[in-house]
Formats: sequence, C-alpha cells, structure tokens
Amino acid sequence: MSFLYKADPVRGAQWARRFAALAPELPFRIWPDIGDPESVRYLAAWQPPEDPLALLPNLEIVFSVGAGIDQFDLSRVPAHIPIVRMIEPGIVEGMVQYVTQAVLSIHRDLFDYAAQQGAQVWREKPVRAAAETRIGVLGLGTLGQAVLDMLRRFGFPCAGWSRTPRALDHIECYAGEASLDTFLARTDILICLLPLTDDTRGLLGQRVFDALPAGASLVQVGRGPQLDAAALLAALDSGRLDSAILDVTDPEPLPAGHPFWTHPRIRLTPHIASATRPDTAVDAVLANLARHRAGQPMIGLVDRARGY
Amino acid sequence: MSFLYKADPVRGAQWARRFAALAPELPFRIWPDIGDPESVRYLAAWQPPEDPLALLPNLEIVFSVGAGIDQFDLSRVPAHIPIVRMIEPGIVEGMVQYVTQAVLSIHRDLFDYAAQQGAQVWREKPVRAAAETRIGVLGLGTLGQAVLDMLRRFGFPCAGWSRTPRALDHIECYAGEASLDTFLARTDILICLLPLTDDTRGLLGQRVFDALPAGASLVQVGRGPQLDAAALLAALDSGRLDSAILDVTDPEPLPAGHPFWTHPRIRLTPHIASATRPDTAVDAVLANLARHRAGQPMIGLVDRARGY
Repeated sequence: MSFLYKADPVRGAQWARRFAALAPELPFRIWPDIGDPESVRYLAAWQPPEDPLALLPNLEIVFSVGAGIDQFDLSRVPAHIPIVRMIEPGIVEGMVQYVTQAVLSIHRDLFDYAAQQGAQVWREKPVRAAAETRIGVLGLGTLGQAVLDMLRRFGFPCAGWSRTPRALDHIECYAGEASLDTFLARTDILICLLPLTDDTRGLLGQRVFDALPAGASLVQVGRGPQLDAAALLAALDSGRLDSAILDVTDPEPLPAGHPFWTHPRIRLTPHIASATRPDTAVDAVLANLARHRAGQPMIGLVDRARGY
Repeated sequence: MSFLYKADPVRGAQWARRFAALAPELPFRIWPDIGDPESVRYLAAWQPPEDPLALLPNLEIVFSVGAGIDQFDLSRVPAHIPIVRMIEPGIVEGMVQYVTQAVLSIHRDLFDYAAQQGAQVWREKPVRAAAETRIGVLGLGTLGQAVLDMLRRFGFPCAGWSRTPRALDHIECYAGEASLDTFLARTDILICLLPLTDDTRGLLGQRVFDALPAGASLVQVGRGPQLDAAALLAALDSGRLDSAILDVTDPEPLPAGHPFWTHPRIRLTPHIASATRPDTAVDAVLANLARHRAGQPMIGLVDRARGY
C-alpha cells in the first residue's frame, strides 16, 4: 500500500519529510517514480494522470493539493473514487491575510495615495468609518467564512452569499439566485471566493457590476474564468466600479500586453493569495485518511453533482 | 461658561452639531469667534493660542484634538491647567486599519508584486507563514495595544516595547532602554507608535536599524521627527532594511523632490493613518468633562514631566 504525490516536486519533498515523520508505515512516492502501480491506494495531485484507474488499478481516494478541483477533469476519475479538496489551516491563513489586505487598501484609498506618491503630491482624503464600507463575500465555504470572521472585527458591515442557505453569527446571509441582486445592492467591496463551475463561469460580468452600488470595488480570489475581462475594463473606465484587486486571471500566467497589467485601477498578483503549506497539508490528508478508515466522512469531500 | 474650538473649521462645524445635540447647555464657539473671553472654560485645540490665559482668563482645561500633544508648546499652558490628549474610538479604528494593512503588505511581498505588475512579470514568491514574521510595536498606549490585539489574530508573533513596564495578554512585553536591543533583535516588522518627546526625537536611526534582523521593515506612524531620513535611506540602499511604510514625515507636507517620494522601497501616505472623528471625539470630550466634574481622573490626561 502506498501514497503517490503528483504535483510541484519541491513541495513534494517537503510532503515526503512530513509523511516519513508522521506516517512511516505508508510508503510515499513522488511522480513519476510511482513504484509498483498496484500498490498505490491514495493519490494527491494538482492534475491526476489521464486515465487514473488504468495506471493505478487499486486507487481508493484522490486528494487535490489545492482548495479547488476545477483543474481536474472529473469525468476521468471513476465515480466510486472519492475526490477530496484541500482544506487546511495554511490555505485559510493566507487567504484571510490577502483579502484583509485588499479590503483595507480599498477602504483606505491606497490606489489614490500610490498615485499621489508617484506625482509627489501630499493631500489628505477624509478617513471613512469602517461602518460605511459594506463587505460582501460570494461563497461561504471554509475560506469565505474565515475571511468574514476577520473583516467583521474591523467594524465593516459584513454579508455573504451562497448557493445553499447558511446561517452565520454576525454575518448577514443571502442564498440563491433570487437574492443575489439584493446582496449586491448592499455591497461596496465584493469578494469572490466561489468555486469554478458552469454556474460561476463568467459570473463576474456586466450584470453583477450593474447591480453593485456605483463606485464599488472587486476583490477576485476565486478562479480566473469567473471574470469577464472586457466587462471589468468597461466598468472601471466608466466609473461604475472604482477599482479591482485580482489574484487570478484567465489565462494564467497573464500574458504581457494584457490591459489588466497597466490599468491604473487594477492591482494584480500572480495567484499567490494563498497556497497549501506542505506541513499542514500533510496533517490534513492524514487526518482525512484516519477518518476514512474509521468510516467517518472526510473533510472537503467533493460533491460531483455540484462540482465542488 | 462656554467651550471654545480652535482647529479645522470644517470639522468644527461637525463638533458644533454634536455639541448642540448632546450638551445644549454648554455654548460652543469656533475660533476666531470666541464670544466673551471670560466665559471660556474649556478649549479644544490643535494649537492653543500663544498666551492662553491672557486671552482666556478663566480657562480650566485644554483638550488636544489629536492623539499627540507634541504640536503644543507646553510652556505656554500654565501648569495648573490640565492638558488632555484625544483618545477616542475613531482614532483607534483608523490606526488599526492602517497598520494591519501595512504589515500585511510587507508580509505578503506587495512591494515586489507591485514592481512585477509594472514590469508585466507573473512570478510567484513562496507564501510565508504568519508565524515566521515577528511584529514589534514601539509604544504600548491605547493605539499600540489595539494594533497588537488585531495583529495577533493573524498568527504573527507579537511583542511590544514601552518606557515603563506593561503586562498584556498574548503579547511579549519589553520595557526600558536596557531591553530595547533584545526587543529589536526579535522584530521583523517594527511599528513606531511612540509620542514625540526629547527621548524619541531621532530614535529611528542607524542604532535602531542595526539592532533589527537584516531585512526587517519599518512602519512609521508616530511623528516625523522621530525618523532620521538619511539613516533610513542608507539602511534601505544597503539592504539592511527591506522596506518602509511612512505616514508621517519631517516636515509635513513633505516637499516635492525629497528622496522618500521616489524610493522604490518606501511607500508614503500624507499623515492619514488615523484621524479624530468628530462624533466620537465630542463623545470622548463630554465623557471627560463629566469625569472632571465628578472629581474623577480624565482619560488621556498628559503627564507634563514625561511629555505625553
């Protein structure tokens, strides 16, 4: 019985050290050095091999090394094999940091102050109270909840929207397509933490931007194909939106020459908002294996019907 | 008996509305319309008049409209008149926002990512755990404590240094000159929230920078004259320091052409980290007046011997 890792090899070496320390009885292999294919029971991958079961006939579980599984072709993983997303403290910590930083930058006018520094202009803008900047998070999974729980501590009025109803302390919760416009109309900074599915592809487009208050801002930390680039540029140039902070794009890497790079109201980072941390990721995988062996549901189990 | 306000007149009008609503029995005057000088008992000022008692013979208390009183010439206010600094929730909220934003920007390499965006380069840097970035705050008054209480929630190891010993939950506390070097040696991001006094003028200079770990960063939200500009530029250019985020300078406004404006590892804002908010400031002043009348100590009472 062995565990096969198929993703970034530098991080793989860190996984291997943690596995050796915590689960020495389970041989750990790094792709392409898979050893005996028949002994591989567990696979952790960014992208699984093309036909996993032909290669690994005794495969029991597929773990994603990322928080999302949109990079997987689900049809290639047979339905009886559970797929598990990565939910671990390292991903959560990084996302909370990134989104808090983005929200505070927008709330405190740092786009303007950066431009003023470039022009050597010393000019104060009034400081707005946190109570005047309403935060709205699309997606209320582990990451969305953690982000809201931090932002509310600053005094921002906080709301969240999810496909299925949620009830969260201190957070105004909206659910389903019918409530989306109401949620957007009370949101000054919109944060996207949705998974990429057929429903969310292209969602961040003119319809959503028009439903936000004039002068709202976008923080996009979901997946690149959720954003309609032309609609964003039009909304920023018309002043409909004030600014956007984007950590994901379509494609990635974003090619040189793309208008996002140079737009004065766009700040861009190269998909670094949050990353699985090897140590805590291995801990999360081993805890899920223990749950699986005890007949308990694994944390992050993907529902194939909804796609996340 | 009247209350005289001598500072920004736009904010003064907001103070006047709040006073009229909450303390209609106390006439509120905005400088230079002081009415009968003999009736003025209370003065709220950014800078008091040159000889306050000659002008206002029955003056009882001077309130600063700012968190600091270094802009006051204390020798001009007779010793029997208490001077009270502004401590109110609006100042605290703004400072917590600004410093959190600054710390997260440094921790998440946003200086580098902004440069990469300018060069249209998509390149990830590894995400460091919060546990690897040690925060140190100089000054453990109301603002320093509030800043640390927020930053520790992100998982940063947090310490503070103050002139006199303090004990705070979750915070490693250092006190006095003798412990300064030990405090600095464990600090990756140094935040200055000290008042301006003879002891702190020029404090942020080569001696302090050399005591920090190589590659540390500075967040300066104290007062401009605390920072030795030449020493900062030398430390940044030698790589001794990684970066600096400055909200205060000497002088203010910083003149065009000053090297801070264009340095690639300096981010500059025009003294906006936090500002007194008229509503909550009036509430704080009225609460202090009530304390004074009841014979209780006012919050923010200045100790003239230490200068803050």
